[in-house]
Amino acid sequence: MVVEVISVGTELLLGNIVNTNAQYLAGQCAQLGLSMYHQTTIGDNESRLSEALTQALDRSDVVILTGGLGPTEDDLTKETCAKVMGLKLVEDAHTKQRIEEYFKNNIYSCITDNNWKQASVPEGALVLDNDNGTAPGLIIEKEGKHVILLPGPPMELIPLFSKQVVPYLKKLQPEVIRSQMVKICGKGESLVETQIRDLIDAQTNPTIATYAKTGEVHLRITARAGSEDEAKALIKPVVKEIKNRFGDDVYTVKEEETLEMAVVRLLQKYDLTVTTAESCTGGLLSGRIINVPGASEVFKEGFVTYSNKAKRKTLDVSKSTLKKYGAVSAQTAKEMATGGVFATDADTCIAVTGLAGPEGEEEKPVGLVYIACYMKDKVKVEEYHFKGNREKIREQSVVKALDLLRRSILANYKD
Amino acid sequence: MVVEVISVGTELLLGNIVNTNAQYLAGQCAQLGLSMYHQTTIGDNESRLSEALTQALDRSDVVILTGGLGPTEDDLTKETCAKVMGLKLVEDAHTKQRIEEYFKNNIYSCITDNNWKQASVPEGALVLDNDNGTAPGLIIEKEGKHVILLPGPPMELIPLFSKQVVPYLKKLQPEVIRSQMVKICGKGESLVETQIRDLIDAQTNPTIATYAKTGEVHLRITARAGSEDEAKALIKPVVKEIKNRFGDDVYTVKEEETLEMAVVRLLQKYDLTVTTAESCTGGLLSGRIINVPGASEVFKEGFVTYSNKAKRKTLDVSKSTLKKYGAVSAQTAKEMATGGVFATDADTCIAVTGLAGPEGEEEKPVGLVYIACYMKDKVKVEEYHFKGNREKIREQSVVKALDLLRRSILANYKD
Repeated sequence: MVVEVISVGTELLLGNIVNTNAQYLAGQCAQLGLSMYHQTTIGDNESRLSEALTQALDRSDVVILTGGLGPTEDDLTKETCAKVMGLKLVEDAHTKQRIEEYFKNNIYSCITDNNWKQASVPEGALVLDNDNGTAPGLIIEKEGKHVILLPGPPMELIPLFSKQVVPYLKKLQPEVIRSQMVKICGKGESLVETQIRDLIDAQTNPTIATYAKTGEVHLRITARAGSEDEAKALIKPVVKEIKNRFGDDVYTVKEEETLEMAVVRLLQKYDLTVTTAESCTGGLLSGRIINVPGASEVFKEGFVTYSNKAKRKTLDVSKSTLKKYGAVSAQTAKEMATGGVFATDADTCIAVTGLAGPEGEEEKPVGLVYIACYMKDKVKVEEYHFKGNREKIREQSVVKALDLLRRSILANYKD
Repeated sequence: MVVEVISVGTELLLGNIVNTNAQYLAGQCAQLGLSMYHQTTIGDNESRLSEALTQALDRSDVVILTGGLGPTEDDLTKETCAKVMGLKLVEDAHTKQRIEEYFKNNIYSCITDNNWKQASVPEGALVLDNDNGTAPGLIIEKEGKHVILLPGPPMELIPLFSKQVVPYLKKLQPEVIRSQMVKICGKGESLVETQIRDLIDAQTNPTIATYAKTGEVHLRITARAGSEDEAKALIKPVVKEIKNRFGDDVYTVKEEETLEMAVVRLLQKYDLTVTTAESCTGGLLSGRIINVPGASEVFKEGFVTYSNKAKRKTLDVSKSTLKKYGAVSAQTAKEMATGGVFATDADTCIAVTGLAGPEGEEEKPVGLVYIACYMKDKVKVEEYHFKGNREKIREQSVVKALDLLRRSILANYKD
């Protein structure tokens, strides 16, 4: 089964945005066992899109088009596909109603005539409800070919694809491909690879692929087999071996579980509450924790103490510590973590203070970050020297803070 | 002058990496005034690459190929290009010498036989020295067409392109292209388009393109002209007209200025400090403000008050308000904003409370968010009904909060 992707959007040809959709779809299709040989990017131009689609239909079984489903005149993906495939556009009553509801609930926007354009679909098309926007996804089948149209914004495309297109594609593909994720935190990619070099060298089925993320390494173990059970049986011993080798560095084996989810799960498991005391990360750490459904059980309150005054007043960091060691120091991090616990009665507090740049201080370079975790009357502090810009330094700090909290819980509470 | 990009690499088709090269090259070519209508991604496969290149040479003047110039057997971009263009490969003595030197200076690698493959070039090709790797860039000219081969790693491609390919392309392209951004917040894409429908319909030079972002719409006005000054003169009246029509909805006309940067700039301008009181956004609002260089002048402290107890204790929200109206209410938002100012002595406080899901409350649906801004002894509260998942609701809340703060400053301080 051969699939290809056509990304539609003049903004891609102008370099205004990076095509993350193509990567996402390519990765997903590879996991499904589909072969991809071509990706094409085209502007919002009817004749060139028409040419590209005709060529794609000639050489591939499934063509996924992204973008150009908006309400404006230059959005013409749907119209062009219908024309190339010889289908009329008809109004879809269900989609029309969904658009009405969408605008009813969105007081800031008002419905304009061109919004109704999104309610027309090629006749016979499968309509995929879009919960995050007004353009529905569409699947058109004709003469053994499958054309899938998805909206361009990743926040709309990803849920549509994972919930509605994946099950559709699975049915087209007889071979079963299953994969299992092992997520590792606290080790670099080359170190991880070195530790499983023998497994990678010996791989045929299942295969092991490594992906480097900020502060994390993900391993995907993928098996092809005649049945689901067979595939699972192939994967199981490899995952077991990897878990043995990495121990607590593995924070999850669940595809959808993020580091913050694993942390919230552990806090829930041991009935702990956490607070955050952030300086350079400025609320990004609490933001990630709170993004986990159910976080309200374990997270009640957090502090962003950016100025020295706020650190003193809110977290009771002593004046002499700030004077002697400075705001970016192990001592300040330690007092912030302690102060956070005492200010909120939480069981644990994770504190971050550092220099995210653009300017460093005398003897303290940009990227110097201290992370402290208060737990069971003790504080553990770690010092990091991160590379990269302001955003990148913060992102790495948040990952290390979550990981320190995770490891502290395991060290103190795991039997 | 029409240019297109062919990205070569099976890792792109498997979704292992995102194609940032295509974005970089597209942006650079747009700035140079070259027209790009196609981008193609192909695996390391001779017949498909050969087909793609033949098609590209047929429809474009310049074809830029990236990737597949490495020393291993599956790297075949150069070989395939030479074949398609009917050119022999010959050894380039200068490149051979550079490869020898590279390995002499690189204690971690040792030279292997296949490295010499990188010293062979299509006869007559212009060789572009690569200071960051062993694969040189190549420019092949034949029958009025220009084929440019660049190594895949961005660390090698970007310096090669900017230092050696840009001057080459400038000579081919006499015309100048300049563009100007206008960023709008608080209006949906279709509403914005309706308001400038006449300008869009009349556009030839400059052109107007609209881009929808979360809670924002960006307009790019692009002109082609014989000189920089001429291009600027074409753009100026259009930008002026758009600013007239949208007034304070326009938050910036600077390409690189984000909404949070515009907010921090206004706070600095009027010498104001801000604090944040966040419930459902959990620190993401303060995180965005703090990500702006110089934010420490205007932001000293923020609060993440997720539980009712934290709202009461830290922000002095009254027990009776929480009981009578609930945590997600205009009244609570108002008291949070007021409490934030009194807790910190800041000039203004922006407060957010809402239901980001996954579960709503009785009579309060997921997506219901109240945003309040305390300024000059008054509090303005807004009610929103956002769509989407937890993350999307938060993201929209943060944008609306930043925009409410921005508009409040303008309303209270702008002459």
